[in-house]
Amino acid sequence: MEALSELEQLLDHHGSRFLEVPRSKTPSGISLVGVPYDGTTSYRPGTRFGPEAIRAASIGLETYSPEQDADYTDGEVVDLGNLDVPYGGATPVINQVREAVGAIVDLDGIPLVLGGEHSITAGIVEALVARYPDLLVIQLDAHADLRDGYLGEHYSHASAMRRCLDALGEGGQLLQVGIRSGERAEFQELRESGRWLPASAEQLHSRLDEFSGRPIYVTLDLDIFDPAYFPGTGTPEPGGIDWATFAALLRTIPGDRMVGADVMELAPQLDTSGVSSVLAAKATRELIIKIQSQG
Amino acid sequence: MEALSELEQLLDHHGSRFLEVPRSKTPSGISLVGVPYDGTTSYRPGTRFGPEAIRAASIGLETYSPEQDADYTDGEVVDLGNLDVPYGGATPVINQVREAVGAIVDLDGIPLVLGGEHSITAGIVEALVARYPDLLVIQLDAHADLRDGYLGEHYSHASAMRRCLDALGEGGQLLQVGIRSGERAEFQELRESGRWLPASAEQLHSRLDEFSGRPIYVTLDLDIFDPAYFPGTGTPEPGGIDWATFAALLRTIPGDRMVGADVMELAPQLDTSGVSSVLAAKATRELIIKIQSQG
Amino acid sequence: MEALSELEQLLDHHGSRFLEVPRSKTPSGISLVGVPYDGTTSYRPGTRFGPEAIRAASIGLETYSPEQDADYTDGEVVDLGNLDVPYGGATPVINQVREAVGAIVDLDGIPLVLGGEHSITAGIVEALVARYPDLLVIQLDAHADLRDGYLGEHYSHASAMRRCLDALGEGGQLLQVGIRSGERAEFQELRESGRWLPASAEQLHSRLDEFSGRPIYVTLDLDIFDPAYFPGTGTPEPGGIDWATFAALLRTIPGDRMVGADVMELAPQLDTSGVSSVLAAKATRELIIKIQSQG
Amino acid sequence: MEALSELEQLLDHHGSRFLEVPRSKTPSGISLVGVPYDGTTSYRPGTRFGPEAIRAASIGLETYSPEQDADYTDGEVVDLGNLDVPYGGATPVINQVREAVGAIVDLDGIPLVLGGEHSITAGIVEALVARYPDLLVIQLDAHADLRDGYLGEHYSHASAMRRCLDALGEGGQLLQVGIRSGERAEFQELRESGRWLPASAEQLHSRLDEFSGRPIYVTLDLDIFDPAYFPGTGTPEPGGIDWATFAALLRTIPGDRMVGADVMELAPQLDTSGVSSVLAAKATRELIIKIQSQG
Amino acid sequence: MEALSELEQLLDHHGSRFLEVPRSKTPSGISLVGVPYDGTTSYRPGTRFGPEAIRAASIGLETYSPEQDADYTDGEVVDLGNLDVPYGGATPVINQVREAVGAIVDLDGIPLVLGGEHSITAGIVEALVARYPDLLVIQLDAHADLRDGYLGEHYSHASAMRRCLDALGEGGQLLQVGIRSGERAEFQELRESGRWLPASAEQLHSRLDEFSGRPIYVTLDLDIFDPAYFPGTGTPEPGGIDWATFAALLRTIPGDRMVGADVMELAPQLDTSGVSSVLAAKATRELIIKIQSQG
Amino acid sequence: MEALSELEQLLDHHGSRFLEVPRSKTPSGISLVGVPYDGTTSYRPGTRFGPEAIRAASIGLETYSPEQDADYTDGEVVDLGNLDVPYGGATPVINQVREAVGAIVDLDGIPLVLGGEHSITAGIVEALVARYPDLLVIQLDAHADLRDGYLGEHYSHASAMRRCLDALGEGGQLLQVGIRSGERAEFQELRESGRWLPASAEQLHSRLDEFSGRPIYVTLDLDIFDPAYFPGTGTPEPGGIDWATFAALLRTIPGDRMVGADVMELAPQLDTSGVSSVLAAKATRELIIKIQSQG
Repeated sequence: MEALSELEQLLDHHGSRFLEVPRSKTPSGISLVGVPYDGTTSYRPGTRFGPEAIRAASIGLETYSPEQDADYTDGEVVDLGNLDVPYGGATPVINQVREAVGAIVDLDGIPLVLGGEHSITAGIVEALVARYPDLLVIQLDAHADLRDGYLGEHYSHASAMRRCLDALGEGGQLLQVGIRSGERAEFQELRESGRWLPASAEQLHSRLDEFSGRPIYVTLDLDIFDPAYFPGTGTPEPGGIDWATFAALLRTIPGDRMVGADVMELAPQLDTSGVSSVLAAKATRELIIKIQSQG
Repeated sequence: MEALSELEQLLDHHGSRFLEVPRSKTPSGISLVGVPYDGTTSYRPGTRFGPEAIRAASIGLETYSPEQDADYTDGEVVDLGNLDVPYGGATPVINQVREAVGAIVDLDGIPLVLGGEHSITAGIVEALVARYPDLLVIQLDAHADLRDGYLGEHYSHASAMRRCLDALGEGGQLLQVGIRSGERAEFQELRESGRWLPASAEQLHSRLDEFSGRPIYVTLDLDIFDPAYFPGTGTPEPGGIDWATFAALLRTIPGDRMVGADVMELAPQLDTSGVSSVLAAKATRELIIKIQSQG
Repeated sequence: MEALSELEQLLDHHGSRFLEVPRSKTPSGISLVGVPYDGTTSYRPGTRFGPEAIRAASIGLETYSPEQDADYTDGEVVDLGNLDVPYGGATPVINQVREAVGAIVDLDGIPLVLGGEHSITAGIVEALVARYPDLLVIQLDAHADLRDGYLGEHYSHASAMRRCLDALGEGGQLLQVGIRSGERAEFQELRESGRWLPASAEQLHSRLDEFSGRPIYVTLDLDIFDPAYFPGTGTPEPGGIDWATFAALLRTIPGDRMVGADVMELAPQLDTSGVSSVLAAKATRELIIKIQSQG
Repeated sequence: MEALSELEQLLDHHGSRFLEVPRSKTPSGISLVGVPYDGTTSYRPGTRFGPEAIRAASIGLETYSPEQDADYTDGEVVDLGNLDVPYGGATPVINQVREAVGAIVDLDGIPLVLGGEHSITAGIVEALVARYPDLLVIQLDAHADLRDGYLGEHYSHASAMRRCLDALGEGGQLLQVGIRSGERAEFQELRESGRWLPASAEQLHSRLDEFSGRPIYVTLDLDIFDPAYFPGTGTPEPGGIDWATFAALLRTIPGDRMVGADVMELAPQLDTSGVSSVLAAKATRELIIKIQSQG
Repeated sequence: MEALSELEQLLDHHGSRFLEVPRSKTPSGISLVGVPYDGTTSYRPGTRFGPEAIRAASIGLETYSPEQDADYTDGEVVDLGNLDVPYGGATPVINQVREAVGAIVDLDGIPLVLGGEHSITAGIVEALVARYPDLLVIQLDAHADLRDGYLGEHYSHASAMRRCLDALGEGGQLLQVGIRSGERAEFQELRESGRWLPASAEQLHSRLDEFSGRPIYVTLDLDIFDPAYFPGTGTPEPGGIDWATFAALLRTIPGDRMVGADVMELAPQLDTSGVSSVLAAKATRELIIKIQSQG
Repeated sequence: MEALSELEQLLDHHGSRFLEVPRSKTPSGISLVGVPYDGTTSYRPGTRFGPEAIRAASIGLETYSPEQDADYTDGEVVDLGNLDVPYGGATPVINQVREAVGAIVDLDGIPLVLGGEHSITAGIVEALVARYPDLLVIQLDAHADLRDGYLGEHYSHASAMRRCLDALGEGGQLLQVGIRSGERAEFQELRESGRWLPASAEQLHSRLDEFSGRPIYVTLDLDIFDPAYFPGTGTPEPGGIDWATFAALLRTIPGDRMVGADVMELAPQLDTSGVSSVLAAKATRELIIKIQSQG
């Protein structure tokens, strides 16, 4: 079997996975899982290709983060691959997501979900609330996503946070950071609810004081970034944040209380220069290291 | 009101419509209608933008066809615009298509549907069979589309012809021209059924003899063209036809017996050079003139 | 006629227009009109496709502006479509623009012109000065556009502001905001004239005090934005503004004194990711709501 | 000056020119000259970038033609660079072209013009007819180009052959090969005039017998190629020729009687894959070698 | 461990591999291996991304081939992933390729190599000749590749066949099919050697008679296809074959004598519409099934 | 020779060169030279096309800089064209670069090198240190480039600054500005060495005080810019600078002490909108004028 061992040495052992994170079928530590679904996307589809694009773009990144002075190879991370989702309406997909995230949590993994469209987050939050009834969800997003169903779809991408609010119920809590687009009624609710924050690290920091000790879930709709920084998304909205603002927001969040995160709405077909995929991959790396950190 | 009439003379009166075909809300003669739906597309979506791309590309074409020596401005044609379809599963969309095509036929219009994905054709054929029980459907396509449901969707794009066969029942008939991709079982059925023809004008001509006098519906899945000629589609399949072959196939079909047609599966986001939209627009023009012709 | 009314309910009623603004042939309130002309563009042409791209991209936007807390469906707006301009030299186009804008003003409409290249603005300003001799023109732009003719063309895109100065004469006034490119002679004139301002809301605000009560026209050459935010233009110039700066500039302008505006120099063929068209559409929305506002 | 000679050896000596053809300001043998003009283009502009794209793409080609078994470095060829044309209307450009081609002919050069839009050909033919009153022009094209002016422009790209017919007068002659798009009136003229040939080497060969001994000019509108082979053009028209057909047509033309040629209508911005520029460069190489040949 | 098994059922088990071919580290039957190397590419690089693009595009294909009426899931196929090649000069890469292919052959695998640039083929042929001294190499290609080194590189992509000839020595044999570009000296050698064939199934069939019973290696440089069918390659050469011609050539080759094959020169960055990757994937599928066949 | 002089007046005299800088084979004043090399690029290649893209994009710029209030046509500048570099490993290329820059310096030219990949800078610095042993190198970059060889290549792009440090030895000095990506070990060295500065004009200004009077070389790796501003590069890294920050950094550098500069890592194939090439050209213009200035 000399030929075999010789051959194995010549092959690379990457395949399709996030950077140097090993593929595994068993959750362990931070557990990446892709959800290639964009079935309710009303304008320009394509986020179904998001998870693979994030993995492919990660090859241009280092494993070390100068911002957090840490290397994620120090901690435990696996890449579970993608859920095998059906096409068509959202409900069966949300059910699968809820089940899969529930299983990851049962096996003491920390889910880090790569989307796919934002409707998916409802399924994740539903699974996490079952374990963490006092969950605090921090939404980083351009859009309010507070419609109560959209074009006949209960779990629409435009209803993502309405469904999360349903799941959080009385015990949970939502902070909506950076929202800059929606209907008049959505903004009226945002203003009255006290859930709306500008994309400011100072303001997020002071609001987080109210929720000390509670488990935190971060849902990152990448369209919070300005289209200059992140053109590759279905509904770009001018006036968004840059990378430095995102890094500052992340610094305010205590990583040791994070019980999951997601990175949503990359549509790589619209990302002609490839920079959006790279940004999504870097955001994923920073979230991994943040969760691994003690603060 | 001199200013008003002066202004009206300065404005163009095109708007978004096929070439010089007037927009109208009332069917009259050949009645174009777009169906911007791609909800069951399993690989690369985007045909929802097909109808508008066909209209936009038509501006580079003449209204006169040298191949048929006729100008479609000689006959009656209107552009009804697009159906206002929901997202998600296919069934409600198919229902709308069936209803709309039924209404067009009731008003003595001849439907020419611009897709959108191929699943839509089932709704059109269901409406036409109600009027023309002995309908002959000529499918120009790369894919067999004979799966009985796909990924849990009854009206899937991969089941388009299975659903048409359901609708045609005993009285109707299907000819499947140019099919070059499918599962082993689909090709076994194709071979045994006698419905399968190569993309040959001679063979189509001789088969049409069997069905003399019957009303004809032509469903054109544009991926029958080789990807060289038509790159802008979700599932390109090498080995397809060129324009001359399409023109020859069309010549064999008696236009005065055509009771409708469709032009499906243009995904303009994948058509980086724009030539697919132009081809789809030219195919639409040729179908219009063919229906207007007396032979 | 049941079939007819049923069919009408199934059709969408959008067509090609800005968001939910109705198409009309009669000016009424704010009156959008496109001028698809790029005949004097010396480097990379394509702004002739700007008006349609702005309309198409508007579908991804809301009608409500959180920045101004207003919805433009509250006011009167119509979309007149495009002028039917000839190709070749600029003079006949400018004549048409002058005539059309004159007619809109005569009918008490407020023109909001979608370009097309910047040379067009001369025709608009000529028409407005006839009605408002003390017009103040606020130019938001990267380029000085002060050449006295360029490559043999009197109404060149490089002469747009020279021609506006001609039209404004003694009574009118020009402020040139954000200019960062030109010949040495142009910048000498900018510095000496007192017309040059940095892209600063504070400085614009304080300069506007000098002109209280005068009618205002805003000409927005979209290349004032940095190419990061607005790549889709013929002559991108690094060092421009971001969306927040534009929004701040707009806040300083009293909307109730605005008698017109334009949005120029979108070249959608160069906008491979589509974000430039979205930005242009959002700028158009904000200008509409600004004009509708009382301050 | 050792450093200088050392440096010169390290530099490449290509610059921007066609393959290994030297840049020169003096015509000598076959004389390439670019005309970067697209001012009357009514649909999608960009052929102004054609000449440089042909030069840039030539780097991927060999100087040797297997089809003609000859290498163009065997003969005399220079690249004069581009004419310095104004923007706007066509007339001053046509005047420049006529003057420049006249000068090349006076200096015993053979003009090979790289476009730019097809209107330019009128200026070339006007200059050549002055020297060769019995000139035979062979047009390879998709479009008839027989309109008598278009959108108010005498020398429009849509009138290119109408203007050539004017120049040829009684003594000259035109053959229109491969035309497949035009208005009804243009095709009526084509059919009646006897000038229209299909893109068939056999038919071109037999027609050429009628004009034995006469000087020949070949005007190649690259849109004669099918858009599959040549997507990079403003008005692609499905149904065109492939490379083998072009090579066969070229074989029928006696190169020793050719007194000039042009290669028109490459719009490289629309050529996203770059294959159109390569085809245009290869066609240019084959024309050079054809003119150099003795048959 | 219920959660675990539940989760495994939700995950897809594809990852990055060719269609439904399982990833494996051990050769078994037909053994796919990628070589992501383009270090000597002199014009437009990017074939290093070829192997992954072929795998990604395979998702749009069926496993069944109507042309060969066979499904490759019937036979034994594995995907070994990619060699982990260094950058820079070709020699160390060729050494790795020779070693890896040697190991595959030692383990009774049949190598099917996905490139990468054509220089790689020399390493494959060197390994195969050690086992099969009477090897017949059938080159399907646009370029002669007979330069003896190029730009100082012994194993250059322009020398691929010169190096194969070295390896084949007296015992082996080369047939060069479809060559249409090269220097004069290369074509002189092609004509004199008797190795040159047009891309004609008839001629290939009759030449194969001379070599009955000998083991066959097929090296497919995808640029044998016309750029219309295969734009995604560094040095496109107009005048190539279409899919039907490739299929006909393949039919003439006895699959049961094939001891390996390669699919080279896909540069997916240049393949803006994605059709080249699909064609490369379909060619790979057809080669797999051909090798599995008994004729 | 009237025809000749007439013709010369009609031709433009630009060719391929930077803006209005004349092509020359003899260095004189600031001497631009391109190095089209990307042989060690490990991820996405294409910087070999950088020099020509910078020249082509310069046509959209003015020769006058408002920021520096100077026009570079006031000083002496020539464009030497490109080095004729081999492919494959870096060492022979670095040798050529060292030789060429040495020759330029010997002839009292000031080298301004257009890349190509960053490894090239080592050759330039080696040549300059021979003349200026106390050289201060200011690196503007996203990546530390401090690996000691990478993938077996001594002069790798990932080792560019390691090799510069070798060349600078004891007498020279390096400042590394804006670095935001690297391995843990590289950042440990950055922090300990005192060579690392944030991209802050204030901090650069204060550090420059330490090195008063010493000759300065500026190496600009364009990926210091955020990918929003500069998408066209092989390894984009989110979190970079904008144009205003670059301009501020440049203002702190005394131009009269600059003995050379480079502009590296533009990969125009990845720059789908063209804005990266324009930014690179504007940075080149600003560097020229900075060197020409007295402060």
